[in-house]
Order: sequence, then C-alpha cells, then structure tokens
Amino acid sequence: MKALVFREANAPLELSEIEVQTTDAAHVRVTLKAAALNHRDVWITKGLYPGIVPDVVVGSDGAGMLGDRAVIINPNVDWGPDSDYPNQKTYTIRGNPTHGTMAETILLHPDRLADKPAHLSMAEAAALPLAGLTAYRALFRKARLRAGEKVLINGIGGGVALFACQFAIAAGADVYVTSSAQEKIDKAIALGAKGGALYTEERWSKAFLKQFGGVDVVIDSAAGKGYGQLMRACNPRARIVNYGGTRGTAAMDPPSLFFKELEIYGSTMGSDEEFTAMVAFVNEHKIKPVIDTVFTLDQHADAFAHMAAGKQFGKIILKI
Amino acid sequence: MKALVFREANAPLELSEIEVQTTDAAHVRVTLKAAALNHRDVWITKGLYPGIVPDVVVGSDGAGMLGDRAVIINPNVDWGPDSDYPNQKTYTIRGNPTHGTMAETILLHPDRLADKPAHLSMAEAAALPLAGLTAYRALFRKARLRAGEKVLINGIGGGVALFACQFAIAAGADVYVTSSAQEKIDKAIALGAKGGALYTEERWSKAFLKQFGGVDVVIDSAAGKGYGQLMRACNPRARIVNYGGTRGTAAMDPPSLFFKELEIYGSTMGSDEEFTAMVAFVNEHKIKPVIDTVFTLDQHADAFAHMAAGKQFGKIILKI
Repeated sequence: MKALVFREANAPLELSEIEVQTTDAAHVRVTLKAAALNHRDVWITKGLYPGIVPDVVVGSDGAGMLGDRAVIINPNVDWGPDSDYPNQKTYTIRGNPTHGTMAETILLHPDRLADKPAHLSMAEAAALPLAGLTAYRALFRKARLRAGEKVLINGIGGGVALFACQFAIAAGADVYVTSSAQEKIDKAIALGAKGGALYTEERWSKAFLKQFGGVDVVIDSAAGKGYGQLMRACNPRARIVNYGGTRGTAAMDPPSLFFKELEIYGSTMGSDEEFTAMVAFVNEHKIKPVIDTVFTLDQHADAFAHMAAGKQFGKIILKI
Repeated sequence: MKALVFREANAPLELSEIEVQTTDAAHVRVTLKAAALNHRDVWITKGLYPGIVPDVVVGSDGAGMLGDRAVIINPNVDWGPDSDYPNQKTYTIRGNPTHGTMAETILLHPDRLADKPAHLSMAEAAALPLAGLTAYRALFRKARLRAGEKVLINGIGGGVALFACQFAIAAGADVYVTSSAQEKIDKAIALGAKGGALYTEERWSKAFLKQFGGVDVVIDSAAGKGYGQLMRACNPRARIVNYGGTRGTAAMDPPSLFFKELEIYGSTMGSDEEFTAMVAFVNEHKIKPVIDTVFTLDQHADAFAHMAAGKQFGKIILKI
C-alpha cells in the first residue's frame, strides 16, 4: 500500500509502497479516506520532537471505513488510566513512534475508533481528532471555562486555535482572537468571535483592554517574546493555557502573574475520556471543522510547504 | 512619637517625630516592640511598588502590646470576603498607603490582631506575619502541598523562602533549596532540608535531577533568566508558585510546561483566613522564625542597607 514515511530528520517525507501489515485478533484494519496535518508532523520532519524513530508512517489524524462503519481515529497511544494526567512512561501520540494515518490503511485496536460524526464529511472528520482534543482539554479541563467568561485565542488560524474558538463560543463564552493578519481576525468574527487584535502592534494589550476589557482565559501555542502582552490582557485570576510554544521561550511577566494571581497551565493533547467527551460535544453543537485546503496524498510536499508557510486558516487535509 | 516615614522615592526614609493619631471607638492603639523588614519596603523606597503615596509610616510587620496582651499584626488591609482571591479594588498591604509598623505606636482595628505565639520573642513574632502568610498561601493553597512530596525553595535566605522551608518540613515534605552561597544551603540542611544546589552553576538542574530526582513543588520569588532550570527540575504535574520576581522577566520554557503539564501560580501574600490558619500552624508545630540581625529603630539605614546587600539568612528586625 502507499504510505507517507518519515525516514530521517531534515529529509523529505517519502511516499513509499510499503507492505500491508498482517492483522491479528486484537486489531482491525481501517481503510483511510482522509488524514490531517498537525504542527507535530512538521516538528517530526525537522527532528525536533522527542522520542521519534525512523521508518514510521506519519500522521496523527485520520477518518475512514471499517467495513461499512465510518470512523475517526483517537490519536492517543497509551495515555494511561488517569484522565487528569498522561502516564509519562507510556503516552505517545500516533504518527511516531507508532505508525500513523497518512497511508491507505492502518491497523488499530478497536478502542481507538469512534463513529464519524454524521454531519461531517471525511475531510472534516479527519480534521477533528488531535486539534479538537487539544482544544477541548485546554478549555474545559485546564482553564475550567464557564459560560459568560471572556476567552482570548492567541494566533487564530491554526487547527487547535480554531477549535478552541468554536468550542468556547458553543460553550457560551465571549471569544476574542489575535493574529498577524486582519483578514484572519475578520474570519474569526464571521465564526462568532467578538473581536480581535493584531499581535504585530507593539503593546497591543493596551488598546485591547480599552476596547474589550480584560479576559478570563487565554489559549496560546506561541509563547515567545509577546507572552507578557497576553498576561497584561488578563483579568485578575485569569487562566492561561499553553499547548505549544512555536515562538520559543516565553517572556513571562512576574508582576502580572502575582499581583493578578494568574494561573498558567501546560496541556498536551488530551485523554481518552476527553476524546469521547469532545466528539459528543461536536455532535451536540454540530460543530464543523474549518478546512483550509484539501490536497491529495501525492501532493503531500505541497501540503507540508503550505503548513510551514503559516498562512492557513483551518486544517490542511490529505485526501487518500 | 518616633516613626520611620517614606517621604519620596529614591530618598532616604526619615526617622521623624510625628503626631500620635487620635483614636476612635473602632480602633485600638498598639505599642510596638518590634517590626520586620520585607522586600516590599525596599521596592517602596525605590518608588517601584504600585499605588504608593508619600508621608506614610513604613513597615508591614509588627509585634507589640495592647495593654497587657501581647499581639502580632495581620498585614492585610481589606483583602475582601473571598479567601481564594483578593479584592483587586480594595486590597493593599499595611505600610503604604496605610500607616505601617516602624513606629512607637500604631492605630488598628482589633480584627487586625492575633495573640503573639507564646513560644516566640517579640522579635521572632514580628518576623512572622507577612513572610509567614505569603509562604503559607503559596505552599498550601496554591501548590496544594501534600506530605511526602518534594519541594524546591529557590533562593533560600529570604524571609518567605525560610518560612516555606520550615512549613513544608513541618507538613511532612522533603525540602530542597537553591542559593548562590553553599553556606546558606548548609544552614537550610541544618534546619531539616534534604539538600540543595548552587543556582550559580550553569544548568544546575541536570546534576540536581541526577542527585535528588525531580520535585513536585517549586516556591520562587526570583523569576529571571534562570526560570527554565526550575522547570527542568520539576516532575511531571509539578506546581510552581511565584510570589515575586526580583530577577525580572522569567525565561519560561514551553516544552517543560506542556510536556510535563506543569502549573504556574502567582500568589500575593494571603487572606485573613489564611493568616489565622498560619498562626495556628506555627503554634502547633512550634516553628521559630529565623532571625538574621536585630537593629534598633535608630539604625534603620543600616538595616535597609543590610537587606539591599542580600546576604541575610532570616529576617531583619527593628527593635522599637
């Protein structure tokens, strides 16, 4: 079968003809229809993700068919029994070191499967698992978001940021976004956000506070030098959740932290229990993932280049 | 009466003869026997503390006599009804803008007073309020410390750090410390700490992890460039509490934060409820505050210079 394989760091991924693994009593074979890209895949190709190994099929997100049952794949591998925290010895994310979803088929334990939400296409369903789960845990378990609170999503356009935006709106929160592009802020407002700020403006938090007031929750994956602006946009006792740090070391401002008694939480994807709850939430609120572009598996290099350019608004999909 | 007065930023404090305020039905007059210095007083003299005003008696900590009752003073001013979070509109700390404790007498509402723990001298009792309360909230409310956990106190020697060390040991935790001076680490070990590290060693967390393993709680008031080393010394799901940031902006490491799902909490002194609980804890465990040096009120300039030099191990006291 055809599969997109990680061979070594800083080399192109290879679309290879690989042997179909033989199944056993514990596993089932899912025929994949779509997969989605995540920043994690990009870190892996650069060799910048811990614990990765060569010659593994990439991809954490997938949707497909198990016989005539349409399914989506839970990207968790051995999270462990405690929904509060992953087991640090066993937990990984599908797509390395475990074979991933950018292939024609995949062998899985049946407990990794959930029914595809009926209101979603295969491409939309493939967009959901990793990013939806990450947004769900960050908002609801870590930030303990309540209806009526104000949420700031930093860097709208990425998959997790968009799910966080849609989930928070569905949960009754007022959502604000930041971006380097006014166009993305406008698109977020079209989705239901109340407003936004260009983080490229120096000390943007000052104008933000004047226009919108402070926020109770911040969802961030950038960190970096601008972190203090996020903290300044916070109300007292606000919660900031980081599920990434694409801009590197955060310039964390101690007086904001202690005078306002802020709380900062690290969050890494989510548990099996949260995956089930997230899919139920998406079904209940009929949330439609935002798709930026659909590529074919053959166009994988274009898809990864598009992700690296960072211009997307929504998920980047590989149709299989 | 004699009182130490803040006149303006970056000018020496003035030991002045000021009028004794007339009392009313709501207040009582306490004759002060001892006061303690805090970093807050130093920030105030530099004009670097928010909301300060001129011509106010400095000092947050005091012990003295109300008639023949020996008392200590709760440094909270209008924390508000919610023990979880201070009321941001009303909450201040005694010593500016409200008159402080570095004076011969002070007028107070009786609800600001607690009985002096019988096992403490006046100097020891004056050392307790602000620093003890800050350490108590940071350890028990914010970090939710449990017996058997490992606690790292960054920068041992300051008042809060020493109370955090003593309280955590009394609560059944294993305590580790950092310092720039081996002598201070040795003194902490004499108090019951299990070990320590010199934070002046580059990447000290590596040797620390090898020797002692990771920690579950970090108590810090430095922040600054070395923050990442504290995060690297953490076990998964550890809690870091900051009640200060003497080294400025923290270089916060996102991968440590999200892969280990760390939690960072800002903490500012503590509530009235926590003050009562802290004094009870000190009585129960017969904790003796560590005193570095006792000065007279006339020697205030020497006392403040000693604090600014940062060489102390324990509280600096003014005998009145």
